[in-house]
Amino acid sequence: MDLKMFYTKSVFVSNLIGPMLSFSTSNCKFGALKVYKGNSQGGVSFVGQDAYEVGDCSYRYDGSGSNPSLFTEKRVLDAFDDEYGGVVVNPEKLPFESKVFASILRSSVSVWRTEGKKGIWLKLPVEKCDLVPIAVREGFQYHHAETGYVMMTYWIPNEPCMLPANASHQVGVGGFVINDKNEVLVVQEKHCAPELVGLWKLPTGFILESEEIFTGAIREVKEETGIDTEFLEVIAFRHAHNVAFEKSDLFFICMLRPVSSEIKTDDLEVQAAKWMALTEFVEQPLIKGDNMFKKIIDMCIARIGKRYCGLAVHKVVSKFDNRLSSLYYNVVDDQKFDGCLHDSCST
Amino acid sequence: MDLKMFYTKSVFVSNLIGPMLSFSTSNCKFGALKVYKGNSQGGVSFVGQDAYEVGDCSYRYDGSGSNPSLFTEKRVLDAFDDEYGGVVVNPEKLPFESKVFASILRSSVSVWRTEGKKGIWLKLPVEKCDLVPIAVREGFQYHHAETGYVMMTYWIPNEPCMLPANASHQVGVGGFVINDKNEVLVVQEKHCAPELVGLWKLPTGFILESEEIFTGAIREVKEETGIDTEFLEVIAFRHAHNVAFEKSDLFFICMLRPVSSEIKTDDLEVQAAKWMALTEFVEQPLIKGDNMFKKIIDMCIARIGKRYCGLAVHKVVSKFDNRLSSLYYNVVDDQKFDGCLHDSCST
Repeated sequence: MDLKMFYTKSVFVSNLIGPMLSFSTSNCKFGALKVYKGNSQGGVSFVGQDAYEVGDCSYRYDGSGSNPSLFTEKRVLDAFDDEYGGVVVNPEKLPFESKVFASILRSSVSVWRTEGKKGIWLKLPVEKCDLVPIAVREGFQYHHAETGYVMMTYWIPNEPCMLPANASHQVGVGGFVINDKNEVLVVQEKHCAPELVGLWKLPTGFILESEEIFTGAIREVKEETGIDTEFLEVIAFRHAHNVAFEKSDLFFICMLRPVSSEIKTDDLEVQAAKWMALTEFVEQPLIKGDNMFKKIIDMCIARIGKRYCGLAVHKVVSKFDNRLSSLYYNVVDDQKFDGCLHDSCST
Repeated sequence: MDLKMFYTKSVFVSNLIGPMLSFSTSNCKFGALKVYKGNSQGGVSFVGQDAYEVGDCSYRYDGSGSNPSLFTEKRVLDAFDDEYGGVVVNPEKLPFESKVFASILRSSVSVWRTEGKKGIWLKLPVEKCDLVPIAVREGFQYHHAETGYVMMTYWIPNEPCMLPANASHQVGVGGFVINDKNEVLVVQEKHCAPELVGLWKLPTGFILESEEIFTGAIREVKEETGIDTEFLEVIAFRHAHNVAFEKSDLFFICMLRPVSSEIKTDDLEVQAAKWMALTEFVEQPLIKGDNMFKKIIDMCIARIGKRYCGLAVHKVVSKFDNRLSSLYYNVVDDQKFDGCLHDSCST
């Protein structure tokens, strides 16, 4: 008997192989399952696609029969294989009902283990938050979360887990903007650590999701001070750890050229903003007395004096990901540069 | 009557103000709650610390009385205020019982709203995964998750959410290692995208949690090839988006100096490794035909020819976070450098 004929994606089977299986029938929405049967070699064989009800309807499964191992069926969640021997579950075809999910999840893991799969990726949308405790009890771990979902994982093999970690770094940018009067654009923040109260600092902020460093720097300066700028270079970057949520932080100090002069502050984050004489800026005790701040400003000043080459941005396509990404690098001998006095930088 | 005398951290009150309150008594562990009472101005006043049972014991609250608004008590989860007008709930003092949690969470949010609080941070350890759906139903959102917990947030004010986002970037490193025979250290990976099969590439990998870029580059090269190296500079970095889990990726190409020569590959990730003549490396069609790869290698070659200045690493302390962090910058005029031919780089 060709069992496949009994399984279609949109129809519930009311009787299958006698008393083996029975479902309640209704017209509710279906999720998709693959159906496997135990084979006489002790493994499982894929027998076809099946449907389960997405909703609160229950179904009964009777595993009895003259040869139980042949008729032991396991339901498997809809998923696809990734390039690394892992499985990615389809979040749009998860059952809502917790008990159904618990059972299907358990049998899915069992089948994938038999198939030699490695990592299982289970993305649970927030609408299906009830399934989170179920997955935890089945041995899944949190991997990461975003506003709309939590991603959970399960590493099957008895060997070190090779699943990649999630994002580990926040990225911030600071804009060093100096005008032709040798005045630097500075702000005083509304909310800051107590020891920084009163400090006139460079405009800084985090870049947004999928935002470029150079775009983010221009945007932050614009938002905080109203000044329009052009990106020149990344002067330097700082790398720190255990900054927020025990994550790491990369902060890029960017040289920007102002193309407007009238300041208009953002009242939400900024107390005040102004053009401040560079000499006055570096004389602030809070800058002068701090190695980090001082070093950063020294380099910015060197850059103005054209004694310093930062990393300019270039958009380059790699055909392996067909992606236009940003490559930040120093200029090489034969490339024109913004009048830098480095032998290798000027043409 | 001084209500505070009725509230202590470790004692359950059996009767309070007649029929207002009754608790089941037992010797089980207590969680801590603050207790607020409605006041005649329509707000809430803090009246003291209270205990609730951490476990499955239930408690009954009876809100009746001659002046309900005065006797309406609200329980509040143990939490502390952050610097930004927000509240951070103590994850170690959460109730286990879902119904208790639902009720306390709701009243806590209500009290914090009255107090003018802004963001609520609710960290739910994995042992308390049952509370996740409760929090979602009370209006909390996923913020991020790690193996041991999921962090949820609630933004109270009716204005744009100012809560900071979580980490958004993965950070990878690649090591450009060249010996005195002008041979570059290359590997062939075991697992790679189909179009990259056969490519001899630089050793690359992700940095670990809290790991330095320069340390990670040395480690990756060592793990993949067995070669010991010293870090020289960051040559360039690439910034790409929507790479994995819709997050962004920063990839730092590092120049490393080899201090050993005998190759020993890591069988888990690497198919093979060898020293390859630089001319042969750049002639590979997969390198030659790709703008990104080609550009990166051009700069590495320029750096060997001392016609390029990358960013060297310096450990600097900022006294504002008392943290030793890594600052990567180009050398300035008066600093000694590795024989670079830039006028500004050599002494």
